[in-house]
Amino acid sequence: MLRAGIINVTSYMGGELVRLLAGHPEVKVTAVTGRSAAGKPLADVFPHLAAQDLMVGERIEEEVDVVFSALPHAASAEQCLPFIRSGIPVIDLSADFRLKDVSEYGDWYSVEHPAPELLDTSVYGLTELHRDEIAVAKVVGNPGCFPTGAVLALAPAVVAGLIEPDIIVDGKSGVSGAGRGLGLSYHFAEANENVSAYALSGHRHLPEMTQELGRLAEAPKPRVTFIPHLIPMNRGILSTCYATLRADSTGSDAKTRLREVYAEFYRGEPFVSVTDAPPQTKQTQGANTCLVYPTVDERTGRLIAVSAIDNLVKGGSGQAIQNMNLMMGLPETLGLSTAGLYP
Amino acid sequence: MLRAGIINVTSYMGGELVRLLAGHPEVKVTAVTGRSAAGKPLADVFPHLAAQDLMVGERIEEEVDVVFSALPHAASAEQCLPFIRSGIPVIDLSADFRLKDVSEYGDWYSVEHPAPELLDTSVYGLTELHRDEIAVAKVVGNPGCFPTGAVLALAPAVVAGLIEPDIIVDGKSGVSGAGRGLGLSYHFAEANENVSAYALSGHRHLPEMTQELGRLAEAPKPRVTFIPHLIPMNRGILSTCYATLRADSTGSDAKTRLREVYAEFYRGEPFVSVTDAPPQTKQTQGANTCLVYPTVDERTGRLIAVSAIDNLVKGGSGQAIQNMNLMMGLPETLGLSTAGLYP
Amino acid sequence: MLRAGIINVTSYMGGELVRLLAGHPEVKVTAVTGRSAAGKPLADVFPHLAAQDLMVGERIEEEVDVVFSALPHAASAEQCLPFIRSGIPVIDLSADFRLKDVSEYGDWYSVEHPAPELLDTSVYGLTELHRDEIAVAKVVGNPGCFPTGAVLALAPAVVAGLIEPDIIVDGKSGVSGAGRGLGLSYHFAEANENVSAYALSGHRHLPEMTQELGRLAEAPKPRVTFIPHLIPMNRGILSTCYATLRADSTGSDAKTRLREVYAEFYRGEPFVSVTDAPPQTKQTQGANTCLVYPTVDERTGRLIAVSAIDNLVKGGSGQAIQNMNLMMGLPETLGLSTAGLYP
Amino acid sequence: MLRAGIINVTSYMGGELVRLLAGHPEVKVTAVTGRSAAGKPLADVFPHLAAQDLMVGERIEEEVDVVFSALPHAASAEQCLPFIRSGIPVIDLSADFRLKDVSEYGDWYSVEHPAPELLDTSVYGLTELHRDEIAVAKVVGNPGCFPTGAVLALAPAVVAGLIEPDIIVDGKSGVSGAGRGLGLSYHFAEANENVSAYALSGHRHLPEMTQELGRLAEAPKPRVTFIPHLIPMNRGILSTCYATLRADSTGSDAKTRLREVYAEFYRGEPFVSVTDAPPQTKQTQGANTCLVYPTVDERTGRLIAVSAIDNLVKGGSGQAIQNMNLMMGLPETLGLSTAGLYP
Repeated sequence: MLRAGIINVTSYMGGELVRLLAGHPEVKVTAVTGRSAAGKPLADVFPHLAAQDLMVGERIEEEVDVVFSALPHAASAEQCLPFIRSGIPVIDLSADFRLKDVSEYGDWYSVEHPAPELLDTSVYGLTELHRDEIAVAKVVGNPGCFPTGAVLALAPAVVAGLIEPDIIVDGKSGVSGAGRGLGLSYHFAEANENVSAYALSGHRHLPEMTQELGRLAEAPKPRVTFIPHLIPMNRGILSTCYATLRADSTGSDAKTRLREVYAEFYRGEPFVSVTDAPPQTKQTQGANTCLVYPTVDERTGRLIAVSAIDNLVKGGSGQAIQNMNLMMGLPETLGLSTAGLYP
Repeated sequence: MLRAGIINVTSYMGGELVRLLAGHPEVKVTAVTGRSAAGKPLADVFPHLAAQDLMVGERIEEEVDVVFSALPHAASAEQCLPFIRSGIPVIDLSADFRLKDVSEYGDWYSVEHPAPELLDTSVYGLTELHRDEIAVAKVVGNPGCFPTGAVLALAPAVVAGLIEPDIIVDGKSGVSGAGRGLGLSYHFAEANENVSAYALSGHRHLPEMTQELGRLAEAPKPRVTFIPHLIPMNRGILSTCYATLRADSTGSDAKTRLREVYAEFYRGEPFVSVTDAPPQTKQTQGANTCLVYPTVDERTGRLIAVSAIDNLVKGGSGQAIQNMNLMMGLPETLGLSTAGLYP
Repeated sequence: MLRAGIINVTSYMGGELVRLLAGHPEVKVTAVTGRSAAGKPLADVFPHLAAQDLMVGERIEEEVDVVFSALPHAASAEQCLPFIRSGIPVIDLSADFRLKDVSEYGDWYSVEHPAPELLDTSVYGLTELHRDEIAVAKVVGNPGCFPTGAVLALAPAVVAGLIEPDIIVDGKSGVSGAGRGLGLSYHFAEANENVSAYALSGHRHLPEMTQELGRLAEAPKPRVTFIPHLIPMNRGILSTCYATLRADSTGSDAKTRLREVYAEFYRGEPFVSVTDAPPQTKQTQGANTCLVYPTVDERTGRLIAVSAIDNLVKGGSGQAIQNMNLMMGLPETLGLSTAGLYP
Repeated sequence: MLRAGIINVTSYMGGELVRLLAGHPEVKVTAVTGRSAAGKPLADVFPHLAAQDLMVGERIEEEVDVVFSALPHAASAEQCLPFIRSGIPVIDLSADFRLKDVSEYGDWYSVEHPAPELLDTSVYGLTELHRDEIAVAKVVGNPGCFPTGAVLALAPAVVAGLIEPDIIVDGKSGVSGAGRGLGLSYHFAEANENVSAYALSGHRHLPEMTQELGRLAEAPKPRVTFIPHLIPMNRGILSTCYATLRADSTGSDAKTRLREVYAEFYRGEPFVSVTDAPPQTKQTQGANTCLVYPTVDERTGRLIAVSAIDNLVKGGSGQAIQNMNLMMGLPETLGLSTAGLYP
């Protein structure tokens, strides 16, 4: 069994890593850290994980074969560095190894990057797009939850050159996306029975989308507007994406051709399904699934692509394990085939 | 006191009419109908309205001064016709008097219009846009909930010629918008902890938006894509609207100018506020308020306009009473100034 | 118009006082305070109250005719004292003037009472039980939300001597009952999709219940077990109360007699209804209503009495205004007859 | 691999059986039925189970080694009979094999029992109480969700003779407990933001509780009042149980002794934990866990025992698989050790 360490296990992402790895046949979580709970059993923080019988430490002191970090940006790279330097594979769930352009990182996160020298060799962990690089990477920057859903919804159309570069991503996320830290916006009586848009002047997940869609697209580069919304539910992200079809992609069979492009693009993918009906986030609850539904607004000649994921699984810890499997030479789906929870 | 009759009081819209009119100083509900509950006290259907002490009838047989109908389309016009012919003012909350083009009505609703001869004189009841016509109308087609939010969010930009005709409306509605009729999509365990897009091949509220935005716009006419989403909450619609700013509307002061246009457009409006922060649907719960927040995505030169309403109030029964006030020569805000419920 | 001041308007209870008084024909809120928001418009804190156009101050400096305090215990009595000494009627929504026994107050709240000399003359503001005293009181201790529901559910049976003194109150409250202060238990992703019991070693609302039921009962005094539960909804308290019927209260007509006792007890009450079916909290949302349903478990000879209230209205601000009306010589229902919100 | 058949797979319980068995190393679901969906892939009904690649049939025609039925009562026994007669082990999730007294079954379910001759040999499947009998049973009547939680919460106290026979069970259930069939009470806008008591004249799960607690108790038999409540969440049951401690069970160390009794009773149980803090239903979401928290109300000398389960897992399909494991000679925990979902 490989030994995995998890930094900041007390976050929702950290808890999900433990939950999912508990069912992994080749990996055992042997060390977990979390400042506020250091010295306590993990069961005190997350009673649903009592069976794992783990103690929360200050630091990972034991030898481990792979490290996950669920710390916030900057703090995360800092704590990952010793492991990276020792050659231990690291999957970082923060933003630290997502953006390739260090100045863009500085602009969006308002801190100096703790390890800019690693940006060249670290890999953006959207598994379906970077599978081969991930398999040989030592550091993976696990994607943000919104970019995972949006890029998977749009990638086939972008790669096939079906759409114009003007793209709208309207994201709808459950409240767990905001983490376990308190805030008035996440106070039950405020968030419940409410929906709102936020980050209208720019969300930190936008540059990830632009970077990844830009890599896929021929010039001109996509011009993405991304507006996230807070939805009164715990888990799930629905991404509704809009773009104008290129003139040569419209016509009476546009929808059929579009669906063929998507079906082909995701053929054989274990975790992405092109669905026949608009997906619902509940259909992905707890599972590493991404459901993608592409269609055409025939009145206006627009692509509408909707995707659903669980923000904590395919949008976070599940994808991190998917990446770990590749990095450790294991079958990609190992430990991730559990069906989700419905209803 | 004016006497009001309500057809199909057992719907959520019907219940809201009774609730709101209970606080109206010049109008008294004197007759209410509802097939399934005919012969029963309204309190059996809606215990929160017990104080109104109304009996549900089959038909309005008493003399009334004004009629509201909350029946579904086609059935509604049919039941309204006798009152219309008697010259009694009618506010119809169904779709029957919203679309001016009878063939479009046929296309979207798959029935023959019961009274096409009235389409010329009936008025679309989006009060802020058609105040003068409503004041002299005998038949008002009260707007759909989604068009109310979307058109109010976009009207100032369209009228001022700030945006290109390509418009995306991403609508997010609480489940009461689907009414009180049962359906698997509205079954608690299905709708709760879930978000999904629906009506991707075209929602019936689209032609209303196109009609109303088209009236406001110079040529070319708007090309609207509208995708509604079901949100796990009872009330509220958030409309997130996207459009490209015209070249002469961009620039470093685009946002300032945009906000001035909106402020000017809604100056003095009792129920529409241009807000300084993105609005939340909860801020409108139970009230006849529409909150509008326009901004500019400076990276892409796009307008983003977000509006929040309570789908059952400004998106339905509240606006119906607003229209009634005008039609009956009463102050527009009468009975509608109650503050909403928060949280 | 009477001028009302509200201390700590930025709490949910404070916001509800403003909302409800906005519809009061004889009272106008003229001064509101709230430490964190001092110097800001109330609309910044509660956009739904923008129409009231109030500025939040540090202290009430204007002359007022009546004061409401929505501060926490101890702080509340302290800030109320100057007004009390000036002879201005005060309705305190904190616990400071609820318990008549100062040592019990000390035991439960772990502070010294700031004004024990007032406990003799202040009145417990459960309006239906203490109407006459309230009408002549200068200081009213507005009841806790749980005691309001539980005591109203049980009072008729206790007064009529129908039940043995062993009483179980199982309380179920929406999360707004915990106020606007942040806490992990009220963090959306924790409270949502969850139900739990809390305060199992004793909740501060227990001594109120014991005091009030004790006043109503012949010896022996009630022995109450009260367990509150947190329910994933914003508003509402359902109190399910259990007690063994006295031997002479059982029999084949026990239920009929029980219902007669309740009907008689609450005959003519404007805000308490004895219902024919088990009540739902939603039926009281936003309204000053208490719905009470008494029945008999014929298999075991037990009374089951269920009540529903909105914890912020009849369980708080609504009842406070009901008390104010009495104290100021106004009709008890003034400003409180607005129907609630459903759904 | 053993082959399992599932009758009425289209119910929530049926879906959960498929989900859980998908992770079972010794059992494979090979046949599933469901009238309304017969002829369709299971993925059409439950997209989250698409990976299982099952077709829904009218009847189980294939050879199977074990059968689960998730049909309603009466219909269930009827469809199980052929399998029972063929000697195939059956776990029936309906009420048909729960009550030992056929006349009581008739009273509560208003139908004649389809197979009264089986009541003697079928076993009530509350695993922790009837483990040995289940291991040799051919027909198991899987317990109702409420009895599972309530009996596990009370059993140690009843067996140890700590409490008087007067017992109150206040049950709080998520809405999935009502199944997937439509009804106004489960319509989203009605159930959401609402809590209510139901079945006040007697719920069908009461006789199960009485039967099982009665088997455990010395005379006199328990007199149980059980009131269920509908909670606006999908999954979970919290049972709050109240009983008076016998005189010799009170005293200053009552709580310590009580906790020892519970700890001893459940020592070594894989799925029942005695917790140090009041449990939350969310801590059991998706898992076959029952959390039990016993305490003493020292003011009144009462036992309060709170338990939390997932109504669809330990309260249904999970326990059914636990029973199947025993019946088939497999380790009891096989396929059931997946951690739950949090948040």
